[in-house]
Amino acid sequence: MFRILLLLSLFISTSHASDFCVADLKGVKNPAGYPCKSHVTVDDFVFSGFRAGNTSNAFKASLTPAFVDEFPGVNGLGFSAARLDLDVGGIIPMHSHPSGSELLIMVSGHITAGFIATDNSVFVKTLSKGDLMIFPQGLLHFQLNSGNRKATAFFSYSSTNPGAQLLDLALFGNNLDSVLVQKSTLLDPEQVKKLKGAFGGSY
Amino acid sequence: MFRILLLLSLFISTSHASDFCVADLKGVKNPAGYPCKSHVTVDDFVFSGFRAGNTSNAFKASLTPAFVDEFPGVNGLGFSAARLDLDVGGIIPMHSHPSGSELLIMVSGHITAGFIATDNSVFVKTLSKGDLMIFPQGLLHFQLNSGNRKATAFFSYSSTNPGAQLLDLALFGNNLDSVLVQKSTLLDPEQVKKLKGAFGGSY
Amino acid sequence: MFRILLLLSLFISTSHASDFCVADLKGVKNPAGYPCKSHVTVDDFVFSGFRAGNTSNAFKASLTPAFVDEFPGVNGLGFSAARLDLDVGGIIPMHSHPSGSELLIMVSGHITAGFIATDNSVFVKTLSKGDLMIFPQGLLHFQLNSGNRKATAFFSYSSTNPGAQLLDLALFGNNLDSVLVQKSTLLDPEQVKKLKGAFGGSY
Amino acid sequence: MFRILLLLSLFISTSHASDFCVADLKGVKNPAGYPCKSHVTVDDFVFSGFRAGNTSNAFKASLTPAFVDEFPGVNGLGFSAARLDLDVGGIIPMHSHPSGSELLIMVSGHITAGFIATDNSVFVKTLSKGDLMIFPQGLLHFQLNSGNRKATAFFSYSSTNPGAQLLDLALFGNNLDSVLVQKSTLLDPEQVKKLKGAFGGSY
Amino acid sequence: MFRILLLLSLFISTSHASDFCVADLKGVKNPAGYPCKSHVTVDDFVFSGFRAGNTSNAFKASLTPAFVDEFPGVNGLGFSAARLDLDVGGIIPMHSHPSGSELLIMVSGHITAGFIATDNSVFVKTLSKGDLMIFPQGLLHFQLNSGNRKATAFFSYSSTNPGAQLLDLALFGNNLDSVLVQKSTLLDPEQVKKLKGAFGGSY
Amino acid sequence: MFRILLLLSLFISTSHASDFCVADLKGVKNPAGYPCKSHVTVDDFVFSGFRAGNTSNAFKASLTPAFVDEFPGVNGLGFSAARLDLDVGGIIPMHSHPSGSELLIMVSGHITAGFIATDNSVFVKTLSKGDLMIFPQGLLHFQLNSGNRKATAFFSYSSTNPGAQLLDLALFGNNLDSVLVQKSTLLDPEQVKKLKGAFGGSY
Repeated sequence: MFRILLLLSLFISTSHASDFCVADLKGVKNPAGYPCKSHVTVDDFVFSGFRAGNTSNAFKASLTPAFVDEFPGVNGLGFSAARLDLDVGGIIPMHSHPSGSELLIMVSGHITAGFIATDNSVFVKTLSKGDLMIFPQGLLHFQLNSGNRKATAFFSYSSTNPGAQLLDLALFGNNLDSVLVQKSTLLDPEQVKKLKGAFGGSY
Repeated sequence: MFRILLLLSLFISTSHASDFCVADLKGVKNPAGYPCKSHVTVDDFVFSGFRAGNTSNAFKASLTPAFVDEFPGVNGLGFSAARLDLDVGGIIPMHSHPSGSELLIMVSGHITAGFIATDNSVFVKTLSKGDLMIFPQGLLHFQLNSGNRKATAFFSYSSTNPGAQLLDLALFGNNLDSVLVQKSTLLDPEQVKKLKGAFGGSY
Repeated sequence: MFRILLLLSLFISTSHASDFCVADLKGVKNPAGYPCKSHVTVDDFVFSGFRAGNTSNAFKASLTPAFVDEFPGVNGLGFSAARLDLDVGGIIPMHSHPSGSELLIMVSGHITAGFIATDNSVFVKTLSKGDLMIFPQGLLHFQLNSGNRKATAFFSYSSTNPGAQLLDLALFGNNLDSVLVQKSTLLDPEQVKKLKGAFGGSY
Repeated sequence: MFRILLLLSLFISTSHASDFCVADLKGVKNPAGYPCKSHVTVDDFVFSGFRAGNTSNAFKASLTPAFVDEFPGVNGLGFSAARLDLDVGGIIPMHSHPSGSELLIMVSGHITAGFIATDNSVFVKTLSKGDLMIFPQGLLHFQLNSGNRKATAFFSYSSTNPGAQLLDLALFGNNLDSVLVQKSTLLDPEQVKKLKGAFGGSY
Repeated sequence: MFRILLLLSLFISTSHASDFCVADLKGVKNPAGYPCKSHVTVDDFVFSGFRAGNTSNAFKASLTPAFVDEFPGVNGLGFSAARLDLDVGGIIPMHSHPSGSELLIMVSGHITAGFIATDNSVFVKTLSKGDLMIFPQGLLHFQLNSGNRKATAFFSYSSTNPGAQLLDLALFGNNLDSVLVQKSTLLDPEQVKKLKGAFGGSY
Repeated sequence: MFRILLLLSLFISTSHASDFCVADLKGVKNPAGYPCKSHVTVDDFVFSGFRAGNTSNAFKASLTPAFVDEFPGVNGLGFSAARLDLDVGGIIPMHSHPSGSELLIMVSGHITAGFIATDNSVFVKTLSKGDLMIFPQGLLHFQLNSGNRKATAFFSYSSTNPGAQLLDLALFGNNLDSVLVQKSTLLDPEQVKKLKGAFGGSY
C-alpha cells in the first residue's frame, strides 16, 4: 500500500494548476483573463458579498456584481453571478451584456422581465419565486418589480465578466456629440437635451 | 423615416437565428447540442420547475436539475441550473461534474461544502444565506446541511449539461465486477459487498 | 513513384470533410451551424452579391449582408461579411451585433463612426479610404456618411452570423408595451408615441 | 440508504449524454461533428485497427488513421490517432494537417523528422524509441526512416479529423492547370510535367 | 433620475475590461494573445496602414498585413485583415495560413484565385470587383492578377494572426538539407538547387 | 525572382508567433496557459523523458507524464501525453482527469481497463498490443495489467494539462475530516480509518 501511495504522489505532483486559476487581480489581464494566484485558500472560492442586503432606502434598485473583479475565483471558469434587489416599482432599465448570456433565478417577489431578439420579436414574462428566465448575450432587456413588495433575484452569466451597457448611460451619460445622438437614434433634440441633463452627459 | 424603416427591416431580416437556439428535444444531438426549434415563445426562455418545493418528507435531500433536457432554452448558451433542498443532516454525497464547473448560491440555511483539488488539497467551508461557492469542473465535492433547519440553494453550471458522477453509484450501483472494484479502490471486500447491496450493484 | 501515389491516396481518403463544411441551408441548424452540404463546387466558396451596386435612389443607406444564410460557404469558419453604401448624409443608426465583432474597411468616401464601451467612454473617428475600424461585439455603434459624396465600405465579422439589433426598431418597431418602453428607457411618452408611429410599433 | 439510492438515481437520470457523443456515421455532419449514436457499447470506445501490422512488402511506408471516420468514439472529444510504419528509407513526404497539431510517439526504430515554421526556420531531429515530437497545426513537415530497420510510431492529433494535405498530390495529382502550377510554385515546366505524370495529374 | 444615475454608475464600474483588450505589444504573449493595454483611445481601434498605396514600381505584388502586431486593437477579437495590390501578371504564390481561414474581398481588377482541398480537389475562380472568395484554414492557395490592369483586394482572417507559410520560401529559402528537400518533395536535385539559389537557401 | 523573394520576406516577417507558443515555465500562467518563450530550438518540440524505462523493481506501476510542465512545447496546442508501465498485476487505481479526455495506445502486454459513465453504465475491455481505448473527460476509470508479463502503453490527452484525481488519495490522503469522508461516501468508519492510515491522511 505504501508503495502505491508513493507512485500516486509522484503522478499527481504535476497535475495541480489545471483545476482552477484564481485571479491575481494585481496581474495584467489578456484575452483569457487574469494571471493565476500562486497560493489559494478556500476563501478564494467563496464570495460573501451577497450576504448583507444591499438595498438601502435611498435607492429603489440595487445590483451587486460578483464578476471576476469582485470574485477572483471565477477566473477562467466561464461563469459569474450578481444579486438584484428591486423595491416596488424599481427597475433595471434597458441594457445588454455584450460578453455573456444571463440566467435570472427568482428568490422572492414578482418581476416583469423582457428582451428583444434581433428579428425584433419581444419576449416578456412576469416571474415568481423559483422561476428562471434566460436573456441571450447582447440583446436589450429589462427587469421591473411588478409586484407589491420587494423582489430579490440572482443572476448567473456565461462569462466571468459579462459587461453591461445601459442604454441611457450610453446615449446620455457621456460626451457623445448631441447631434450624433439625434441622428443615430432619431430622438428629438429636446428629448436628447433633457436626458443628457439627467444623466450628466455634455450637451 | 419610413425609408429608414424599410432599410432596417431588410437588414435585420437575415440576422435572427444566431441570438439563440432553443433545443428541439426530438432532434438528434451532436457535440454542440440539440437542433434549434423553429418557433419559439417566451415560455421557451422561462423554467418554472423550481417553483414547487421539491422536498418531500420521504427524502432528506432533493436536487432538481434545469439542464438542457429540462430547460431547452439553455441549448448553445453554455449554462444551466439546479435547485437543492436539504433537510437537517441531509447530504449530497461525494460526486463530480465531468462537463462543467458549479457555482452554489445559498438562499437559506447552512451548508458545509467542500471539494478536493488534484494536488489533493482540501477546500471546505460552512456557507450561509447569500454566500457563493465554486466547485471546479471534474473535482470530487459534497454538500451537507450542517444547520438546524432546512437549507435551500441554487446551482449554476458552466455547461448546458454538466453531468454528475456520484461516487457510490459509480462504484456500487452497477455491474462493475466486485474484484475490479476492490483492486481499483483498495476497499475491503466486505465493504464492497455491503455497499453493493445497499446500492443495488451485482456482486 | 507509383507506389508512393497509392500510399498517399490511401492516406488522404479519410481526411476530406474537416477542411470546410458548406452549409446545407435546407438542413436544421444547431448551435454550431448548419449541416454540411455533401457536394460542393467552387461557387460554394464565392459570393457575388456585392457586385451590383445595391444602393438605389430610394434609400440613402444600403447594407448587403453575406452572412451564412446568404453565403453558405462561411458555415463553421467563424467569419462573414457585408457591404455598406451610404449616400451623403446617410446613416446606419445606433445598433449592436450580439454575436460578433465588426471590422470596417473603407473603400471610398468619408464615414464618421463611433461606438460606446461598457464603461461609457465614447470612441468616434472620421474614416477615409483605406482605413480600418473595429467595433467590439455587442457594443452600440453607428456609421454616418460625413463626406460630400457617396461612401462605400466592407465589413467583416468574427462570426458566421453576427446578428444586428437596431435600437429604434427594438424599442419602437414591435409590440413592446409602451409603458414598459417608457419605464425602461426613461423617454417621454410623446417621444415614444412619435417613434412607435414612425417605426410601426403598436401603441 | 435505499432512499439515498432513489434520490441519486433521479438526479443522474438527466445527465447521461454529455459525457460523450459517439458518432453515428450515417448521420449528417455539421461543423461540430457527427450526430450522437443512441446506443453505445464498450466497442465504440475501442479501436483495434492498429493491431495487425499494416505494412506489406509492397510499400515502404504505411499510415493507418484512426480519425473520427474510422474511430467514431472520438467524435466531439478533440483528439484522434494514427499509426505509422516505415521501412528502411521509407518516408512520409512533405505535408501538413490543416485542422490539428500532431504529436509523434516513437515505438521502435529511428525517424528523422522536421517541420518548417512560418518565419521560415527549420526544426529537424532524429528520434529514437520513446521520443515525442510536436508538429504544429498547418505547418509543412515530413518523417523519414533514417535507421537501418523498420520504424514504428503512433501519432495523436488535437482534432477528431486533422486532415492531411500532401504537397505532391496537391500540386501534381489533380487537374490544377499546369501553367498555374508553374506560376504559383516557380517550378520549371519540365519538372511540373514529370511529376504530374508520376502522380496522375492532368497536363 | 439622479438616483438612477448613481445606481447605474455603480453597476457599470466593474464591467469595463471585458469589451476589448487592445494589445500591449511590449508585454509577453501567451496562447490567448497579448496583455491588455491599460489606457486606450479611438486610435487603438483604427488602422490607417492601408491608406497609402503600398505598391511601388519595383514589385509586381504587395501585401500589407493588419495582424495583431500591426493593429493591436484586434487582440482577442478573433479577426484581422490585409491589403493586396497586384500589378498585371503579379501573383501571390502558393501558400497557406496555418492559423486562420481567409476571406478575399475584391475591390478592383480581376484575380484568378484557387485552393486545393485535402481530398485533392481543386477550386479555381476568376474574381471581379465586389466578389468574395473563401480560402479555408491551412489549405494551399494562390492569387494571380489575370486582368489587364492593377488589381486590389482586401483580406479578412478568422484569427488575429493567421500566419503564412509560403511554399517556395519554406522549401528553398532556409537551411533545410537539400537531400531532405529532394526526398520529401520528390523534386529533381537540379530543380532544388536552382530554387535554393533563387530564394537564398543553403545548398 | 529576387524581387519575389523580397516581397515574400516582407510578408512573412509578421507572421511568426502564431504557429506555436512554447511555454516559458518561469512565467506566470493564466487560464490559457504559460507565456511564450522567446527563443526556441528543435529541442523545445522534442521530449525524451519516455526513453528510459521508468519502471523500477520497487514499483508495480509507473506513470510518466509529458504534460506542459514536463514538455513545454505543448503549451497552447491542446494535447499532451504520458507513458504507462505496469508489472504483472499492477494497476492504476480508480481516478479521473478533470480537464481532458484520455486516449490509451497499447504497445505491449495486456491491460484490462474500464470507465463508468454518468448514467452509471460500465465500459470494461481487455486490450492487446495496438488497441486504442477512450476514457472521456472527468469519468472514473482504471487500468490493470491482466496479462502474464509487463504491459506498456502511451496516453494522449485532449489538454496540455489534464490533471488527475486519484480516488484513494482524494478521500484518504489528506486532512479531509473523517466524519465528512464517512458521510459523503457512506463507507464504514473502520474502512475510512484503515485507508487514512495507509494513505497518510489525518484521522
